[in-house]
Amino acid sequence: MSDPVGARAGIVVTGTEVLTGRVADRNGPFLADRLLELGVELGHITLCGDRPADIEAQLRFLAGQGVDLIITSGGLGPTADDMTVETVARFCGRDLVLDAGLETTIGDIVTGLMARFPEVDREAVIAANRKQALVPAGAVILDPVGTAPGVIVPGTPTVVVLPGPPRELQPMWNAAIATDAVQAAIAGRTRYEQQTVRMFGLPESGLADTLRDAERSVAGFDRLEITTCLRRGELEIVTRYEPQDAAIYSELVAVLRDRHPREIFSEDGSLVDDQVAALLAGRRIATAESCTAGLLAARLTERSGSSAYVAGGVVAYANAAKTELLGVDAALIEQHGAVSEPVAESMAASALRRFGADTAVAITGVAGPSGGSEAKPVGTVCFAVALADGASVTRTTQLPGNRSDVRERSTTVAMHLLRRALGGER
Amino acid sequence: MSDPVGARAGIVVTGTEVLTGRVADRNGPFLADRLLELGVELGHITLCGDRPADIEAQLRFLAGQGVDLIITSGGLGPTADDMTVETVARFCGRDLVLDAGLETTIGDIVTGLMARFPEVDREAVIAANRKQALVPAGAVILDPVGTAPGVIVPGTPTVVVLPGPPRELQPMWNAAIATDAVQAAIAGRTRYEQQTVRMFGLPESGLADTLRDAERSVAGFDRLEITTCLRRGELEIVTRYEPQDAAIYSELVAVLRDRHPREIFSEDGSLVDDQVAALLAGRRIATAESCTAGLLAARLTERSGSSAYVAGGVVAYANAAKTELLGVDAALIEQHGAVSEPVAESMAASALRRFGADTAVAITGVAGPSGGSEAKPVGTVCFAVALADGASVTRTTQLPGNRSDVRERSTTVAMHLLRRALGGER
Repeated sequence: MSDPVGARAGIVVTGTEVLTGRVADRNGPFLADRLLELGVELGHITLCGDRPADIEAQLRFLAGQGVDLIITSGGLGPTADDMTVETVARFCGRDLVLDAGLETTIGDIVTGLMARFPEVDREAVIAANRKQALVPAGAVILDPVGTAPGVIVPGTPTVVVLPGPPRELQPMWNAAIATDAVQAAIAGRTRYEQQTVRMFGLPESGLADTLRDAERSVAGFDRLEITTCLRRGELEIVTRYEPQDAAIYSELVAVLRDRHPREIFSEDGSLVDDQVAALLAGRRIATAESCTAGLLAARLTERSGSSAYVAGGVVAYANAAKTELLGVDAALIEQHGAVSEPVAESMAASALRRFGADTAVAITGVAGPSGGSEAKPVGTVCFAVALADGASVTRTTQLPGNRSDVRERSTTVAMHLLRRALGGER
Repeated sequence: MSDPVGARAGIVVTGTEVLTGRVADRNGPFLADRLLELGVELGHITLCGDRPADIEAQLRFLAGQGVDLIITSGGLGPTADDMTVETVARFCGRDLVLDAGLETTIGDIVTGLMARFPEVDREAVIAANRKQALVPAGAVILDPVGTAPGVIVPGTPTVVVLPGPPRELQPMWNAAIATDAVQAAIAGRTRYEQQTVRMFGLPESGLADTLRDAERSVAGFDRLEITTCLRRGELEIVTRYEPQDAAIYSELVAVLRDRHPREIFSEDGSLVDDQVAALLAGRRIATAESCTAGLLAARLTERSGSSAYVAGGVVAYANAAKTELLGVDAALIEQHGAVSEPVAESMAASALRRFGADTAVAITGVAGPSGGSEAKPVGTVCFAVALADGASVTRTTQLPGNRSDVRERSTTVAMHLLRRALGGER
């Protein structure tokens, strides 16, 4: 791809709790995504603890790599072990100066918080305030979302210093990117379009084949930056391109559509969850789950407003629950086994009836690690979707992975069966 | 803490999919945990894409920081963009040599896999094989768990090269750590004990107070390395110390017990899930969930063998489901509201009866973002536990966070209510 100038960035994530993995870092991935959208190339993410020497070493490393922008997260708290601002000031060769306006702002925030904690030592809090109001000379100040302000130190590279809690970092990143200082640092960025296609039911090797063919048949294919990712049984194809190459991307999508008409379920990045939610508008769904034990009902109710179409469900984990709560015939279980399409069908039909629903989905399977047999090994899962008009779909799949994978993926298969059934596909 | 020699390590995680955040890195946290257990100090984790120049820059950075051991993950596949071994060889100043035995091993593995894909080009596979059998001269070879072998290049620093998929990396790390080469690299490590205490129902500030007091009252307190973490409403207190300081740790635990007898639920690191599973042995539990919509049932069945004590549950999301499936009196809902202790109690009692269970737990709450009122704001959640002997506990809590946080934390509150009820606490 043509990249006459380009802008490159690095991210420094600080905090002993993220370095040791006790808390998963969410800031690196969040910032990586934002940089990608902006067309800024991300070279490195580095993590270290709260030691100033380690933070400074990482800043020097990134500067040595020639990045235009460094973003740090963490270490802005009021306590003595929060040293990021001081370290960045030293790295940038700037003095720390007290910002009186900022001291007032922080003071007001903290006074509000302290009302709930009358026992806290006021003097200590005021001293801590003052520490947080010390900023590198000439820095742009980012107002706190929590209690910690961020700073932007313009230069080569420009350094953006953000707090560690994601709910604070995310809005403050949006404020940072709007400043002249950051815009100047990333002025060389390439502006990209980014599009996402999602498929279900195609192995990764099948997609690789198609992309090899597209490389030959689509003129300008190499101007598209394509990354593919297999996740929870779905394939995600993310393509980045410069705006003038939109027609090349359209040709690629035409090839994908032509080769995999049934497997493509999203060309606008929407998730199967979005699509099922839209299809369920005006309907009423009930679930009957065995091996997934509530995961599907939980997934269907993840979004606010789902109470408009989710009636409820039964977790029929024990066979007795299948017969007593759902009225599945014990003889049916005896004859076909609890993990069978007839039992799944009966579970779905019963859920439809019991909840007065017009849409029902049932899952019964062997999540493992025990309970498998030669005929029904671990990962065998049976599904049924039943609609009020009498339509029904059943399916048996063999899912890979451990107990947790099988349960998780089962919910994805169920979502796709629902999508097809409600969308009129069978 | 005394650390006369010490061993220090760095981790290099490679892969465009983890750098861009499309796949969450699990190897950094896994390896960080293992190093912590071993008493090897971790200074830095660095992430980069599949570019050899970036990988080499990170290796040089870590070597410049004086680490004794570098562990890399990723980039060992058969394709041209997998360049980690070649890059590490160059960094270590070693030639790549073909290992004939390894070529045979990989050939055997790949032949087995290929049986399922008759269309694959044999010649291309053999060429790819040969690439994976090229190792730095003098390296220790780690046998593949998947198809990619790892290598250990002894030196200053010693470099351990592992594949990216966690299910391959984890056993291969165990093999690596058993080698003389890695043991020699980390010979200076300090051997630590590590213990974990868990609490529930104590705010973080309360623990901070207690630790400040312990600092004064426990002699040798500063020889303990204590990290605390608030997660899902539980406090985790992890303490590392050298073996001769075990008595100091015991004193700290005595202080915690004395101050927070009701809040400590684990002194051996066991999770509330472990404890509830043990308490449920020989029992039979059923759930009735509204706002959590199956998350608690799913959590209770996460572990294999849970079918011995989980009967099932009802997700009564709509009020009609509460009355029809669980037989909750519509007048009760009318009078107290669906989110109320009487309704939770009725849901639990009904679950007990319908599933023929001896233990039942019910959850009904306002997960938000809408549906809150002045009397019952978002985050208001009512719980009930009912036992067959007639004992019952009800509780109303006000949980912080967004919809997903409220639902997730509700399951944690329910687990603790179960633990207390089954353990004979009320």
